[in-house]
Amino acid sequence: MKHYKRIDTASRFDTVIVANGAFPKGEVALAILRHARHVIACDGAARTLLGQGFAPADITVIGDGDSLGDERKARLRFIRIAEQDSNDLTKATRHFAGLPTTSPGSRVAYLAATGKREDHTLANIALLMHYYREMDIQPVMVTDDGYFIPTDGDSSFETFVGQQVSIFNFGCRQLESEGLVWNAFPYDEQWQGTLNEAEGAAVKFKADGHYLVYLTFQGKNHDA
Amino acid sequence: MKHYKRIDTASRFDTVIVANGAFPKGEVALAILRHARHVIACDGAARTLLGQGFAPADITVIGDGDSLGDERKARLRFIRIAEQDSNDLTKATRHFAGLPTTSPGSRVAYLAATGKREDHTLANIALLMHYYREMDIQPVMVTDDGYFIPTDGDSSFETFVGQQVSIFNFGCRQLESEGLVWNAFPYDEQWQGTLNEAEGAAVKFKADGHYLVYLTFQGKNHDA
Repeated sequence: MKHYKRIDTASRFDTVIVANGAFPKGEVALAILRHARHVIACDGAARTLLGQGFAPADITVIGDGDSLGDERKARLRFIRIAEQDSNDLTKATRHFAGLPTTSPGSRVAYLAATGKREDHTLANIALLMHYYREMDIQPVMVTDDGYFIPTDGDSSFETFVGQQVSIFNFGCRQLESEGLVWNAFPYDEQWQGTLNEAEGAAVKFKADGHYLVYLTFQGKNHDA
Repeated sequence: MKHYKRIDTASRFDTVIVANGAFPKGEVALAILRHARHVIACDGAARTLLGQGFAPADITVIGDGDSLGDERKARLRFIRIAEQDSNDLTKATRHFAGLPTTSPGSRVAYLAATGKREDHTLANIALLMHYYREMDIQPVMVTDDGYFIPTDGDSSFETFVGQQVSIFNFGCRQLESEGLVWNAFPYDEQWQGTLNEAEGAAVKFKADGHYLVYLTFQGKNHDA
């Protein structure tokens, strides 16, 4: 049974990967970024990060930092990966997964991974599950409104009454829940598990495969 | 073989459904809305629509228009559907599909269906395919950066050199392309068919099932 604590402004991660989507505005994402010691920025995101006044101790940039001045460049580490078959998010994740300090289940926060082109949003969310399956890390994508966590098998999520919950099935033939207003089932289509709601302090799943859980920061009467 | 023309400011639809996501800013979406004769607005979207100065001849609101003043309400038609198993987007689509003037393949534009909570975005995009399969209409979701079209079997899309293209497989075991930089294949995961590019004036697909095509308004060197 895997246990997932609520993600909030006190949550900490082994690394934070900043993608090229809309720069975060939400207080949770900004707190995670402010407290990050290690950040991996997807190319152009490095400029935005520094421009917004964030100064993590350790920044690795995937790309060559073309848009950065020399003074700024001196503070950063650059990783140039020529192959074209992966996007920068995958290159960043693979870099982290290959570090000697990374261990199984290392927690990675993904920020700025949504909010621009919707096909990028769809790809980045699907890639979360890909990284979880293939790289033995625990990704958490934090957006302005909530967070996505890929998992598998039996799990338990810390929740609050009225928290909005969506579940996306990645191949489970068994998928059951405890603590949701509408019981989960092995959804065939991606919309079927959305717009559910937590009844109390925990939601538990029993499953025979992989699934992605989305939880909001605000309860149901919040205007989102 | 289905033929899809490029969607631009001159595109017209049999109806326009306005959802509760971020109100459109893109010129194509705004032109479609400005020229729409029939609009179906998902509850709160009616208020935004009128507030932004749009005045289509015929507006149907899914919901009870709680947030609208009496003067505004008098101009609108309200459809109240009590059942809780469908969201407003599905209620709006089902309403349109049931009208006597709707015929097979009627073209429906979906606006404001993305840009807020990402689980809503994922659900709404997946619902497009659901409507295409179940209701015999041709949905097109128009966002600020591009458009999604669900289709099946063999198809041809009008494109331009450098247009960014993403393909999402909904169960095809055969999926081939002509006119893309990277040939399509029957993708297992949702990220695999993203970030492709048109080589010329048309992209053609040969497929034995359903798939969703996303095309951008701008070419590859546009900052999106």
